[in-house]
Amino acid sequence: MDVVDTPTPELQPMSLGLYDLVHFALMAAGFALFAYLLYTWASREEVGRRYRPALYAGLCLAAVATVSYLVLFLKWDTGFTLTDGVYEPNAEARFTGSTRYPDWAVTVPLLTVELLAVCSLAGRRARNLRATTVTAAFLMILTGYFGAQVVADGRDRTALVVWGLVSTAFFGYLAVALIGAVRASLPHMGTEAAVSLRNATIVLLSSFGVYPLVYAIPVFADATPAWAATVQVAYSTADVIAKVGFGLLVHKVALLRTAEDVRAGEDTHPEPVWVSHVHESDGVLPELGRVSPAAAATLRGEHHHGEHHHDEHHHGEHRGHGATRTAPERT
Amino acid sequence: MDVVDTPTPELQPMSLGLYDLVHFALMAAGFALFAYLLYTWASREEVGRRYRPALYAGLCLAAVATVSYLVLFLKWDTGFTLTDGVYEPNAEARFTGSTRYPDWAVTVPLLTVELLAVCSLAGRRARNLRATTVTAAFLMILTGYFGAQVVADGRDRTALVVWGLVSTAFFGYLAVALIGAVRASLPHMGTEAAVSLRNATIVLLSSFGVYPLVYAIPVFADATPAWAATVQVAYSTADVIAKVGFGLLVHKVALLRTAEDVRAGEDTHPEPVWVSHVHESDGVLPELGRVSPAAAATLRGEHHHGEHHHDEHHHGEHRGHGATRTAPERT
Amino acid sequence: MDVVDTPTPELQPMSLGLYDLVHFALMAAGFALFAYLLYTWASREEVGRRYRPALYAGLCLAAVATVSYLVLFLKWDTGFTLTDGVYEPNAEARFTGSTRYPDWAVTVPLLTVELLAVCSLAGRRARNLRATTVTAAFLMILTGYFGAQVVADGRDRTALVVWGLVSTAFFGYLAVALIGAVRASLPHMGTEAAVSLRNATIVLLSSFGVYPLVYAIPVFADATPAWAATVQVAYSTADVIAKVGFGLLVHKVALLRTAEDVRAGEDTHPEPVWVSHVHESDGVLPELGRVSPAAAATLRGEHHHGEHHHDEHHHGEHRGHGATRTAPERT
Amino acid sequence: MDVVDTPTPELQPMSLGLYDLVHFALMAAGFALFAYLLYTWASREEVGRRYRPALYAGLCLAAVATVSYLVLFLKWDTGFTLTDGVYEPNAEARFTGSTRYPDWAVTVPLLTVELLAVCSLAGRRARNLRATTVTAAFLMILTGYFGAQVVADGRDRTALVVWGLVSTAFFGYLAVALIGAVRASLPHMGTEAAVSLRNATIVLLSSFGVYPLVYAIPVFADATPAWAATVQVAYSTADVIAKVGFGLLVHKVALLRTAEDVRAGEDTHPEPVWVSHVHESDGVLPELGRVSPAAAATLRGEHHHGEHHHDEHHHGEHRGHGATRTAPERT
Amino acid sequence: MDVVDTPTPELQPMSLGLYDLVHFALMAAGFALFAYLLYTWASREEVGRRYRPALYAGLCLAAVATVSYLVLFLKWDTGFTLTDGVYEPNAEARFTGSTRYPDWAVTVPLLTVELLAVCSLAGRRARNLRATTVTAAFLMILTGYFGAQVVADGRDRTALVVWGLVSTAFFGYLAVALIGAVRASLPHMGTEAAVSLRNATIVLLSSFGVYPLVYAIPVFADATPAWAATVQVAYSTADVIAKVGFGLLVHKVALLRTAEDVRAGEDTHPEPVWVSHVHESDGVLPELGRVSPAAAATLRGEHHHGEHHHDEHHHGEHRGHGATRTAPERT
Repeated sequence: MDVVDTPTPELQPMSLGLYDLVHFALMAAGFALFAYLLYTWASREEVGRRYRPALYAGLCLAAVATVSYLVLFLKWDTGFTLTDGVYEPNAEARFTGSTRYPDWAVTVPLLTVELLAVCSLAGRRARNLRATTVTAAFLMILTGYFGAQVVADGRDRTALVVWGLVSTAFFGYLAVALIGAVRASLPHMGTEAAVSLRNATIVLLSSFGVYPLVYAIPVFADATPAWAATVQVAYSTADVIAKVGFGLLVHKVALLRTAEDVRAGEDTHPEPVWVSHVHESDGVLPELGRVSPAAAATLRGEHHHGEHHHDEHHHGEHRGHGATRTAPERT
Repeated sequence: MDVVDTPTPELQPMSLGLYDLVHFALMAAGFALFAYLLYTWASREEVGRRYRPALYAGLCLAAVATVSYLVLFLKWDTGFTLTDGVYEPNAEARFTGSTRYPDWAVTVPLLTVELLAVCSLAGRRARNLRATTVTAAFLMILTGYFGAQVVADGRDRTALVVWGLVSTAFFGYLAVALIGAVRASLPHMGTEAAVSLRNATIVLLSSFGVYPLVYAIPVFADATPAWAATVQVAYSTADVIAKVGFGLLVHKVALLRTAEDVRAGEDTHPEPVWVSHVHESDGVLPELGRVSPAAAATLRGEHHHGEHHHDEHHHGEHRGHGATRTAPERT
Repeated sequence: MDVVDTPTPELQPMSLGLYDLVHFALMAAGFALFAYLLYTWASREEVGRRYRPALYAGLCLAAVATVSYLVLFLKWDTGFTLTDGVYEPNAEARFTGSTRYPDWAVTVPLLTVELLAVCSLAGRRARNLRATTVTAAFLMILTGYFGAQVVADGRDRTALVVWGLVSTAFFGYLAVALIGAVRASLPHMGTEAAVSLRNATIVLLSSFGVYPLVYAIPVFADATPAWAATVQVAYSTADVIAKVGFGLLVHKVALLRTAEDVRAGEDTHPEPVWVSHVHESDGVLPELGRVSPAAAATLRGEHHHGEHHHDEHHHGEHRGHGATRTAPERT
Repeated sequence: MDVVDTPTPELQPMSLGLYDLVHFALMAAGFALFAYLLYTWASREEVGRRYRPALYAGLCLAAVATVSYLVLFLKWDTGFTLTDGVYEPNAEARFTGSTRYPDWAVTVPLLTVELLAVCSLAGRRARNLRATTVTAAFLMILTGYFGAQVVADGRDRTALVVWGLVSTAFFGYLAVALIGAVRASLPHMGTEAAVSLRNATIVLLSSFGVYPLVYAIPVFADATPAWAATVQVAYSTADVIAKVGFGLLVHKVALLRTAEDVRAGEDTHPEPVWVSHVHESDGVLPELGRVSPAAAATLRGEHHHGEHHHDEHHHGEHRGHGATRTAPERT
Repeated sequence: MDVVDTPTPELQPMSLGLYDLVHFALMAAGFALFAYLLYTWASREEVGRRYRPALYAGLCLAAVATVSYLVLFLKWDTGFTLTDGVYEPNAEARFTGSTRYPDWAVTVPLLTVELLAVCSLAGRRARNLRATTVTAAFLMILTGYFGAQVVADGRDRTALVVWGLVSTAFFGYLAVALIGAVRASLPHMGTEAAVSLRNATIVLLSSFGVYPLVYAIPVFADATPAWAATVQVAYSTADVIAKVGFGLLVHKVALLRTAEDVRAGEDTHPEPVWVSHVHESDGVLPELGRVSPAAAATLRGEHHHGEHHHDEHHHGEHRGHGATRTAPERT
């Protein structure tokens, strides 16, 4: 064991300026995730049924991340005591780092689900790829957590390196698998959707690169207050880019592909699709599958006169059912 | 009475690593249940009306379990005080064990409702089976709670064994009844749905096996911090598998059976059904039951010229009703 | 005044076992009410518009009761301090009893609304009966609260008896009025619905019997810890039966009556009705009231060739409106 | 300045009975507002689009009032400490009075919006009247707050009188303007709706009378504990009547006017309207504006045989698109 | 560095009257934002799909601002201790200022999105302008935060001036870009919508002017309690005007443009549009795209007699499917 003997990054005394900067970063990131959650929730039915699982994944991970930032904010808010112009950490401050891992353990697998939901793989192949990428993403976070938190409170350099390498191996698989799925899907959609899907993949995988970078620094350098603040700001920025930025691009792919399916007559969607004031497709009702014989007769005008009579009678009947009972009772 | 004199598992002092591990397990499981709750809520109308009770059961139990994990997390968070590098339990820590039982008392009965809602038993037979399995599931948890918590604070070996056996008897009935219902239902659905239903049943009943195992250990072994951490991690993992994993399989059965009913013309469902990018059925409108004589006349083109006139007149009339009043008032 | 000099039931020191039992009862009842709330909220549009007020009453009272149990749980959780293996009550413990009354003051009137909403009384007669039963239910609780809490902190036997009798008089009126309304309604619905409505009425009125029983005991017997625990368990059980059990029966009546109205052509409802896998009615669209002349012409095929032209032109026009502006701008 | 030297009403020591009575009033009023909020939210689409702003105003003000009562309850709960059988106020108790004003500053303007939304004024006249009544209502509360809270902590009799009179002047304008709008609207609706609208106006304006009454008392009389309790109970009762009672009457007007518009053919509404089991109008679909040439051809049976072929081909095509890709992949 | 040595505005001791005034302003502004959030959420589907992003932006920013005011209120509530009739600030009071910045960092960019969503720019041009204005708005807030909070705790006059000027430069770009977009859009809509859009732009940009004004004062004047209260009241008022007032105007533009598109046949929208009781457009169904051959045959009356037979048979079949199984089981 090669244990570092300085305090962990979470337990550095913070100057007013640095403390406020992290306060800003945590709150702004939490607000951005919360706004994205509400947007995805409110607009989820604008996307066709086929691609809607992408929005479900987006809203679920946004909700988890929002709650996670609430916990982080509360820990940051209560984890430091202002003493002589310096914020001194207390026992609660320990969790300003570790709280991010359970969040990522759920949200990173959901990010891969979100991406695959706008790709074109179908059936068993889609299910298998989803299962392996979800598993790899979960293990990537879990092994990172072992190195950064569980073994010797994250102060053992050897554990950091070993578990860091294991985690990176899972990331490697993830990158290869997702890029493969995206490449196979691009020919099945229009240019605009394909460009957005390619961008979304780049945003996701490159933002993932921030995490090991931040993770690796304590192996080589002592933690300082400025470093602790940088970690929080970097993680918060990366979370917003990887979740909100990526999510908006995926949302656009889902909208454009919905419109493509409707225009091609392959699917129905009851709302028109508009993207940035461009009309992409009309709203189309589901199939009219059944017509009652009575409605058909009215349409054909067969019992036209009789129908009027019947209709009134019918109205009389079904209102009368209530009316007989209720007529003398109404005010 | 054969009362154990060591502290209960909930009251062990925890090392940093073990404490953080449970912290991770409780938070990640809570996040997974929360994400599943939102997914089920958001997507509940994608399943046909016939099988939707399965989703209601799923979302209700997910909500209860999410709240339960919030309470557990808060009790874990406040139930230990960091003293000299060790987390010492206080009075709140007692509830890091007992809080799970009221959760299970509601969620385990709902799990049986969820499973039966995608089986094919109907009418009185369905109602009777639902009533007996819900009762058995509730009593299974209640009797377990008596042994593990109420009698002598769960430290009496005799009570643990006796109540444990009573609880197991209810589990036995549950297993037999559910397997019977599933077996009777498999022939009434397509292969893919049947495979998922069989898998869901296996996941549910085998994950139930984790609980008595964890329950039984204190009968034979002293509680240690590592054991206390293992209990929390095992329960959290089992809860996620039995609720989220099982729920996703049931969801798939419900989707596939909805599509089967629509394709067979036995039911209407206004949205298309897609499962993993495979188009399973078209969206079909409900029956068109009534047409107004005016709409029918327009369709037949009977009063075409007159209708134009009438239509304008009509428009004039009903806008005019407002317009007369409002025209001079508009900006 | 005949004031009891022992502590109130809420202020008894509790053993671990009894304390945990109440903890279980409050949490499990709260979870059951919460699950029922979510179920009713999620499924409220499955019931036809006519009977939907029953579900609104159900979800409103479930929400109030859920919040009330949250307050009760918090008061129970913080109202006792573990000292030498016994939970000693503090000032907060007073509210583990009194918090139930404001809950009942709102939820019991809503229970009568829920029942009447699936009966058949209509118009002024329905409004009058609703007004009087809501008032009687509110006064039944308010007068009970005066005796049990306001006068001499509920320790005055005379006040308990007098206000208890006043409260019982309101209960008497309530029982007579509701039974009358149910009896008048049974002939207007099918057998299955009628059986469920009768059962719902029995469940409601008999569960109401638990409350005066629990209320009356302090008149005759001293409060003991076991009695205090019994009160909490009995109230919690009665609340679940009177709200959730009753509510599920009313829900079933509402579903069956919706299907009866649709089958009789008296109402439209866009979703099919299924009860326990039995298909009770088809989904039926609202009346088609207006058709645009353009749509009618397309249907008649009148301007078929021209229409194609017109349609393209029209499409060209309205897409072009965007396209002219946006075509050079799209990626 | 004519400053009263007794403690403010909020800072009176309270006996158990009075404290519990206010506890009951705050909780029951909060529950009633919460239930009304949920009812309005859940049922908002039952009212036609034209009158729906009334429900939006109702649900917004109910939500604000519910949160306000939560804050009031928390301040009441923590603002008094039980010492020797008496609840002694602490610094938090100050806010058991002042918290109501920011609530009213938002909810009273919304009450006037709610009322005007079921009147018949339209266009610029409606907008102007809405703007002036909203402003007057806001200023009525703001000036009341200055007298009751800001100037000398509400203990200056002169300020109470002067600001009270200013506030009353705004109330006078409000009453005149609203009564005028209602009177002008009554002839434009049916008798039943008109009666309810008149009643709603009476309920609103007379319940407003409670507030100046309660406000004026400290000018003439010393505050006592009984008076402090009466203030809370009176405000809570008035809030429930002015918000929930008034809101239910407005809701009924909105339902009845929706049905009138549908029956007159002036508007479409997809759901039937039922009020107290009386069938007021049928559900009517929006206009059918566009039909695809393919659907029209199917309806005319033109390409019947070919269509079957085409239809299968079409089905084959669009399923095949998936099937070619997915057929070998499905389980 | 030119550091001010008086306490920051957030750390002034406050008299009862000033403290209560800010209490009122924070609560009333929070309530107004909360009500606007609920209104926008509840009514978001009343606006056509094309302009709905404006409502999404509005509800997201309202939600963030509501949460932000909750935090502000809690910090104000707990950040001062009543000592000898004066509210003395404690460490929590620092955040009664800084909490506003993370809110604005998310909400101000969303305000520009909201405005652009009812303009007429489309496609790439719309996306580019949205991207640059969102970035400028974010940087305007971030640079302001650096000057007001991060550098020397906001007490350095030089930093205030320098960062203030940088922030103002971003505001300048924002104003020019938004005015340009609005001007280009006005000719594409009707007069009433254009007037509201122009007003909305004026409200937004002029309310933005309040912030630098408040920001600049500490450069020239010492902070006093009255000044600290004025800052809070001014910010709260400006937030309500810039978010709620602006939002209601944008909402109106969105409604009127929806009606224009429907009347012009360019879009379908299933609900009628009413603005202040003026009927702006009818509800129009999406295109009827597919009709099942069976429904078409019923409509043509082709297999009328056979169909009756078939229909019963069909009904018998699909009910029978259940009925055979369930008939003997029903109660």
